[in-house]
Amino acid sequence: MLYLLTCLEKPEIKDFRDIACERRYDRMLIIGEKISVIAKKVREAMDSRDPKPIQELAESQWKAGAHFIDVNIGPAEENGEDLMKWMVSSIQEVVKAPLCLDTTNASALEAGLKEHNNEWGRALINSTSNDPERFGMLELAAKYNAEIIALTVGKGGLPADAEERCGIAAEIMARAAEYGVSLEDIYLDPLILQVCTTQDQASHSLKAVKMFQELNDPPMKTVVGLSNISNGVPKQMRGLIDKVYLTLLMYEGLTAAIANPLDKELMDVIKTTDIFLGNTLYAHSYLEM
Amino acid sequence: MLYLLTCLEKPEIKDFRDIACERRYDRMLIIGEKISVIAKKVREAMDSRDPKPIQELAESQWKAGAHFIDVNIGPAEENGEDLMKWMVSSIQEVVKAPLCLDTTNASALEAGLKEHNNEWGRALINSTSNDPERFGMLELAAKYNAEIIALTVGKGGLPADAEERCGIAAEIMARAAEYGVSLEDIYLDPLILQVCTTQDQASHSLKAVKMFQELNDPPMKTVVGLSNISNGVPKQMRGLIDKVYLTLLMYEGLTAAIANPLDKELMDVIKTTDIFLGNTLYAHSYLEM
Repeated sequence: MLYLLTCLEKPEIKDFRDIACERRYDRMLIIGEKISVIAKKVREAMDSRDPKPIQELAESQWKAGAHFIDVNIGPAEENGEDLMKWMVSSIQEVVKAPLCLDTTNASALEAGLKEHNNEWGRALINSTSNDPERFGMLELAAKYNAEIIALTVGKGGLPADAEERCGIAAEIMARAAEYGVSLEDIYLDPLILQVCTTQDQASHSLKAVKMFQELNDPPMKTVVGLSNISNGVPKQMRGLIDKVYLTLLMYEGLTAAIANPLDKELMDVIKTTDIFLGNTLYAHSYLEM
Repeated sequence: MLYLLTCLEKPEIKDFRDIACERRYDRMLIIGEKISVIAKKVREAMDSRDPKPIQELAESQWKAGAHFIDVNIGPAEENGEDLMKWMVSSIQEVVKAPLCLDTTNASALEAGLKEHNNEWGRALINSTSNDPERFGMLELAAKYNAEIIALTVGKGGLPADAEERCGIAAEIMARAAEYGVSLEDIYLDPLILQVCTTQDQASHSLKAVKMFQELNDPPMKTVVGLSNISNGVPKQMRGLIDKVYLTLLMYEGLTAAIANPLDKELMDVIKTTDIFLGNTLYAHSYLEM
């Protein structure tokens, strides 16, 4: 409801999307996932440096309620710097949104951070972890005043349970302090695994989201890559699994999800869960808001 | 999964519905709500003593996965005893299910309890409360070895929060002991109010479901009348609100819900939530089970 109040206070604001995203933080944050090298259309647009399909995806996700636009260029081993710079400027030409820069290529990431317009919110780096190869991402977060996602996984095997995820989170938090990254700028990611092969991990990740928050005061922020939960599941069932799991994650206090804001059913479930969490006031028109 | 194990152990069982409902208690219990005096078709069948529409509703709900069939005859001030006796015998002629006898008319209730076939599970009385007019229901529960729903509401106003609901629950539990009703035979009902006018009550009821369980060891059973949450909401949004709220209630450990088992989407959400609660093993076919 915060943005409505802001509109009342500032009648010159006609479109709530003109309000910086910080003003919408009372609800769960959506990091729009559609601009990804995995999608053929996006990959082709990247290769031919055609901004249109990318800008359209950015605009449609922003209008659908995304708070960040994820920009996943993959490892981008060739011309990664040029590609990320071009992506950032193309997208921020059309949406006044902060971006989530998603690549394992540190120099491409840095090029994106340099280009990023912080006027509409600080960039979010996706991601550091407990793997030494990802430590440098913390340095970039400090240097460019960016927020950062921290995947609670190391170089070895996957974490066994919520407690192990918390142990890894604590190591990352200590390292962040060394690198000069504020704990309030970290989004801890419990690493969502596919329910169809590792069913018990779904409850470990839920528990981790709850426990992560207790690692600091104010509570640590949390984030998930939602669709991982339904990887490997028959396509017609994926939406249902994603929606039910997200409701539970939100109930445990999740701050943000990398998800598809163009999925109207998913967005309706988020809005409805926000009603039960008391984040939004009920009105017959709440699904349209 | 329990019934599958049972099937393996007892190969003579061909249909899982032949297994007494106790064998399905690892999942949330559904009390099928469709046989209600509120429905015109049911009311007409009751008035003309035509068993067919009622038997069809009983069968379809049972096949869809209901564990109890609710039999709501309303206050039934005229010929209530005869009506409830006829309802119970008509329904149990076609389904091997225990019934949830739903009326404020104590003598009609008693007639139903006398008629009820306990071979397929004990009857469930709907309901006692903290209102002296409903104390007699406990006496009937003890006399006929029935389970009983206890609505945590008194004669006065509605409970303000979860703590007040727990206070009322404790009074009812003490009274049940006096009447000789075992605590394990009570389903505490937090009283679900409509979210559109009393939004904060939705979280109080969720919290009450969690707190009720802590009032005894083994934990107290809990039940809700689910559709109350979406009363007064535009029809096209009711299903969404019911589904999201039920996921949260299940996550807090709800034992049973009075709901519509013929709502395939609702049942799919329940089955999916059971996956995340670890009550069911994931299989690509879990929605069909």
